Parts: sequence; structure tokens; C-alpha cells
Amino acid sequence: MALRFKNAKRIEGLDQNVWVEFTKLAADSSVVNLGQGFPDITLPSYVQEELSKAAFIDNLNQYTRGFGHPSLVKALSCLYGKIYQKQIDPNEEILVTVGGYGSLFNAIQGLVDPGDEVIIMVPFYDCYEPMVKMAGAVPVFIPLRSKRTDGMKWTSSDWTFNPQELESKFSSKTKAIILNTPHNPIGKVYTREELQVIADLCIKHDTLCISDEVYEWLVYTGHKHIKIATLPGMWERTITIGSAGKTFSVTGWKLGWSIGPGHLIKHLRTVQQNSVYTCATPLQAALAEAFWIDIKRMDDPECYFNSLPKELEVKRDRMACLLNSVGLKPIIPDGGYFIIADVSSLGVDLSDVKSDEPYDYKFVKWMTKNKKLSAIPVSAFCDSESKPHFEKLVRFCFIKKDSTLDAAEEIFRTWNSRKS
Amino acid sequence: MALRFKNAKRIEGLDQNVWVEFTKLAADSSVVNLGQGFPDITLPSYVQEELSKAAFIDNLNQYTRGFGHPSLVKALSCLYGKIYQKQIDPNEEILVTVGGYGSLFNAIQGLVDPGDEVIIMVPFYDCYEPMVKMAGAVPVFIPLRSKRTDGMKWTSSDWTFNPQELESKFSSKTKAIILNTPHNPIGKVYTREELQVIADLCIKHDTLCISDEVYEWLVYTGHKHIKIATLPGMWERTITIGSAGKTFSVTGWKLGWSIGPGHLIKHLRTVQQNSVYTCATPLQAALAEAFWIDIKRMDDPECYFNSLPKELEVKRDRMACLLNSVGLKPIIPDGGYFIIADVSSLGVDLSDVKSDEPYDYKFVKWMTKNKKLSAIPVSAFCDSESKPHFEKLVRFCFIKKDSTLDAAEEIFRTWNSRKS
Repeated sequence: MALRFKNAKRIEGLDQNVWVEFTKLAADSSVVNLGQGFPDITLPSYVQEELSKAAFIDNLNQYTRGFGHPSLVKALSCLYGKIYQKQIDPNEEILVTVGGYGSLFNAIQGLVDPGDEVIIMVPFYDCYEPMVKMAGAVPVFIPLRSKRTDGMKWTSSDWTFNPQELESKFSSKTKAIILNTPHNPIGKVYTREELQVIADLCIKHDTLCISDEVYEWLVYTGHKHIKIATLPGMWERTITIGSAGKTFSVTGWKLGWSIGPGHLIKHLRTVQQNSVYTCATPLQAALAEAFWIDIKRMDDPECYFNSLPKELEVKRDRMACLLNSVGLKPIIPDGGYFIIADVSSLGVDLSDVKSDEPYDYKFVKWMTKNKKLSAIPVSAFCDSESKPHFEKLVRFCFIKKDSTLDAAEEIFRTWNSRKS
Repeated sequence: MALRFKNAKRIEGLDQNVWVEFTKLAADSSVVNLGQGFPDITLPSYVQEELSKAAFIDNLNQYTRGFGHPSLVKALSCLYGKIYQKQIDPNEEILVTVGGYGSLFNAIQGLVDPGDEVIIMVPFYDCYEPMVKMAGAVPVFIPLRSKRTDGMKWTSSDWTFNPQELESKFSSKTKAIILNTPHNPIGKVYTREELQVIADLCIKHDTLCISDEVYEWLVYTGHKHIKIATLPGMWERTITIGSAGKTFSVTGWKLGWSIGPGHLIKHLRTVQQNSVYTCATPLQAALAEAFWIDIKRMDDPECYFNSLPKELEVKRDRMACLLNSVGLKPIIPDGGYFIIADVSSLGVDLSDVKSDEPYDYKFVKWMTKNKKLSAIPVSAFCDSESKPHFEKLVRFCFIKKDSTLDAAEEIFRTWNSRKS
């Protein structure tokens, strides 16, 4: 094979992907899949109905405006105008993208140059690192660390960063920091105080903030999601990312959006028009209609933005109990739809597994094969240096219908009884 | 505003886009829009029905396999297996992308390095140039030229490249050539002889071929679409791009695919998993079902792959008559759904329009405003040096229902009667 047919340098070493590997593993229908983060709960029927309706409207099957279908950017402008308490220009300050993923890509490609540094908190949603590298930039990592909680309830609030350590990561090369709240995989909902520390550093060092807030509605009792873009001086330097998949439990729609000032969004638009040009019209049109339904009842409990976190909080608590029962100490998440558990107390000996993978990779593969339960290893969300500190943690997804959680419970019960 | 918040260098100067500008212009509902290439004909009803069905199947609203929904890559493998007369591995040799556009982006980002040269024939589908530049590479242009056809029928077959001139564009820096057959905007269907010249040069200079064949089914009487990848020695160096939007007249679905050898496709996959990760599931599932319907009746006239070009050939001939009647000399296309006309004989004097735009930009704006008919200037499909050679040409889209073409005819008739 000719040498020149190798990959372009920008993607060198970026071909590994945890989802490709573990989704394939969980495809076996006898496996209870608590791995990849997709809902198997009953979907909001009006969302499905709107897509079905759009399918039969001829012009909703044709190209639409490249930066977002008009009715969708209007709905987003209305919704987020209320949340930001600020007018948001549907045409200049919103960009509809191929999922939250597409927003991250557009932001990084549009704003980050080779040699720039981008600060990422560990653990992190796995695509941040290769996306930064694909832009030729350097990811600079800072860990979230847990307070000691011996014997007590362990929650995602116990995890935070050290402000001095964070400041030490900023330099003249720092172009951006990627924030993720509510956090995947930990479930941490950043407090106003924590966000203020980050905001102060962004302003002091004239740094962009790319804020991945795709789980914005999924916040549990006692916690509140705060948008860093609403802190003084932050709007002008923040790209905030949202997701239809996470908002309406339709991850397969692959629609997301970036919100920010026109002077930043315009660069994301340039990337979009030279990579995918536009997003699917019938999905955008249906999403707009779904939004209008819920925008009109935002104070009602049946509004999906309110009802989904209520439904999920019950599942979270159930999963926490289950994990505790089998000795997998959970980190109770304050947001999102994942729960992490420390599997070290199980003492599963995998030293004879011939692989140089981290322990959690081996553990999840062992569990998938032997217990017919799949999850995602948390070290997949770490840079190579941090992996050893997280390799005893495993992430379970709990946006699952009761019968799926029942099946998981059955596995845990059998597991527990054999252990004792 | 802080200096460092400017765009990343890779998108410098790439913010202009003809679609954004002219689509906005044509949005006025009193304008008959023969500009952007989207169908307003009656859509194949089973395609719409399949999307409507998919909307109600819960798991078809969730993430699917990142490189293509299993049923879709299977259908594509079956279809193209017949066409290539070769087994095509659904998992390794096919990648489903966000439109043909996304395939182009993935191919260029995955295989082309900064400093590489990429040969592009002029005129060209407008995104080729900025996509090559966004990869830091250098587009090298070679013109398609028309034979003299004084007084005779002028067709897209009259346009070709000079083989010696093409060879002179190859160098040690040449990484790829982008081929487009059937050609947008000219409608040229490359002959086997022409493709052989290109193939010989690709092989001699160890060059990749990125073959944009999104109009593959839209070929008119007397012509045949040939895939360059089927020529000896070309499979291993060719990425062939197809489009659901063009195949089933649903441009708003934004689904396309790349087909090629695993050693090339794997690099496109890496770009995809670090940019959008996956395409929309309900659309992919519906598209697969639509394909199965037509794969089973490929020899029947009612198969959409056969019926659509028949339907369009009538429209092509009608448009050619209309254009001739008003003195706009058309280039009869052998494929695709566009027809170009030379507007110079109209002698519309636009010298007082204060703008340094090419004549055709000014002409289309004038026509949109004064005749309520929109089109696309052909110089939008040219590099800056070639624009003057093409600025008397305008592209009209004819995949339009009869009432739209009737409205265009009415405009042309009035125009003609006023002229005489």
C-alpha cells in the first residue's frame, strides 16, 4: 500500500473510541446494557408524533437554513431568553449542530489554533481530548478530586477542583477551558462559587469558556443548574452547548446547539458551512414543535423539563441501593443520568487477564461476559496519566425503563448471594 | 473585543458561502426559486411513510452504530455490490455521513495534510475549495472548456478537460483529485475514456480520487454513469460519495455515504468519531427501508432509480425550450438536475450596479428582484481566477413540480414579449 495513503497527521493516534468498543460488546441481546448513555424509557409521545407529522410535509424533507431551521432557532431563542433573562438573537447567537458533539467540534475547530492550550477537568467526556488534539492544540488536564467520605454517603458534590491548582494551569497559551455541568461521568452540578472561580480565571486570563451543559435539565433535589454564561463578564466569552437528545430523551436525533455572542458563534458557523452545511430538516422542525409544547407549560410539573428529572431521581435512588447492596460503593450524582461505583471492594482478581488495559476496562469486559451486565469504564474519561487514579470506577447509565433496572437488580442479587 | 477571540487560522477567509446569500434572497415567497438544488416535486410516498414509522419505534430514536446504522450499511452493501459487481463489506468499506457534504469533509480531513495539493476541475461544487483550504492544503485548478458549437445544440458533453493540461497539474505534492460525475453545475457525465485518462494519472502519480457521484441515478437518454472506482487499479485509491438527498429527493435528510477500501475508509471514520460521532437514527432506519423497496425492483420502470430520471428528462427538455425562447442559450445537461444558460445575449446592462461582484452575481440579483425568478451564478462554482470566464453563465434547478415550472414559464414569456 502506498505510503501517502496513510491518515492525515491531524488524526494521528485518534482512532480509538470507547463507544465503538463497548457498544459492540453490549450488542449481545442477553446483556443488560447500562453502558452507553441512551434512554430506553418511554419517550414523550408528542416528540415522536411531531416527527411523524414532519415526515409527511414535503418541504420539511428538503434543505433548510444552514445555521438552524427558522422555527427551531426561534423556539430556542424564546426558551433560553427566559433562562438567561436576556434577549438572544435567533439568527446570530444560536447555531443548530449535529448533536452537542457537533457543537463541541465546531467551537474547537472554529476558535482553537495549533499550539493553543485548552484546559480540561478530569474525568471528562471522552471526545474533548481527541477534539482538542485534532485542532493541533494541547489539552492541559486538572483533576477533580474527592473529599474523604469514609463510611458516609459519597456524592458528586464531594468532587471538586483546587482553585490554586486550576490557576496554575492557565498560561499565555491558554485559549479555552472546557466546562461540563452537570458533569458526565461524575454527575457533579457545579455550584455558583465554583463557577465564579472559573469565571474569574477566564476573565483574568482572557480565556474562552466552552460550557457543555447537555444535561442542564437533569438536576436532582437540592441542586440547581447555573449557566456560567450568566455570570458577569462571561456571556461575551462563553459558548454554551445544549442537546435535543438529552432534553427530550432522543439521542438518535443528533441535534444540538451552541449559544453565545455573535462574534464567537460566527466562527462556529464557518466550520459548519464547510463540514456538514446544515442539519436534518424534519428532525429540526419536529424538535421546534416539541419545544413550543413545553415552553408553554414550563411551570407545570408535566413539562418534560420538570417531569424527566423527577422520573430519573427515583431511578437514581434505586440504582444507588442496588450498587450498595452488592458492595459497589456509588457516588450519588446530583445531576445527569449516570452513576459511578467503586468496584475495588469486590476484589475481582483480573491479574491473569492478558491485557495492558486499565483495571476498569478489564472489569467491565469481565462483568459483561460473566454477569451479562455492561457499563463503561471511568478511565475512558481520563487522560493517560490520570487513568490509574480512576481505574477502580465504573459508570452505569440509569435512564432505563423499570424492566431493564429489574433485570439489573436480578443480576446484582444473584451476584450478592453467590458472594456471601 | 479581545484579539485572541478571533477565528482559528484554518477558517480564515472561508466565511463566504453562496447558499447562505442566495437562499436568503430567494426566501421572498413571490420569487420563483430555481436556485438552490432542492426538489419541490412530489416525494416518493414510501420514503415519507418509512420515516413516520421509524418515529414511533422507540429504539430508532436513540444512538446507533457510529459508522452507519446496521440495516442501512447492509442495504448499501447489497445495492452497491450489484453496481460494482464486487462484494462490499458493510462494516469496513462503507461509512454513513451527514450528507454527501459530510463525506467530502471526512475524506479531506482524514487524508489530506497541510501543504498537500488537491486537483479540482472548474467549475466545481462550491465547497470543494474551502474544504481543501480548511485542511491547510492547496487547491490546484484545471478548467473544463467547451468546444465551439456556433448555432448548434450546446450540451454538457461539449465540455471537457485537456489531458496534457491535467497531467501538468500533477506533482509530487498532489495528494488527491476531486472528481464530480454527473457534474454540478454543468451536468456533464464523464465518459469511460475521460475517466480512464484521470485513472491513469492517479495511478501514475499515486494519487487518491475523491469521486462525488451524488447525482449517480440522474442520467439522461444516451448517457451512462460510470464509477471510476470500477476501473482497474482504482478501487484501492478511490472514495466514492453518494447521497440520500439526491437518490430519494429528500435533501433535508442530510444523509450520505462514502464507499471505498477499508484502508481509506478507516481514516474517514476517525474524523467522523471526532466531529459528529454518528448520524440520525430514524432517518437512517427509514432510508434503509426505502432502499430495500427499490433494490427489489431495480429492473422495473417504477423503481425510483429509473423513474426519477425519466420524470426529470421531461423537465430538462422543457427548461431548455423555455431558456431558448427567451434567448438564454442553455447547455443541455446529460445528468443532474441543473441547467446552465448563457445570459450574455440578453445584454442586460448592469454596469451602474455599484458592486465589484462578477456579472452573474449582479444578474441573478437583478433577475430575482425584477423578474421574481432566482437562480445561482455559475462563477460561485469557480476559483477567483476563473470567475471572469464563467460570469455570463447562470444555473437553474429543474427538479421542480409543474406549477413551479409553469410560473417560471410565465416569467420567461412576459420577459420575451417585452423584449420584442
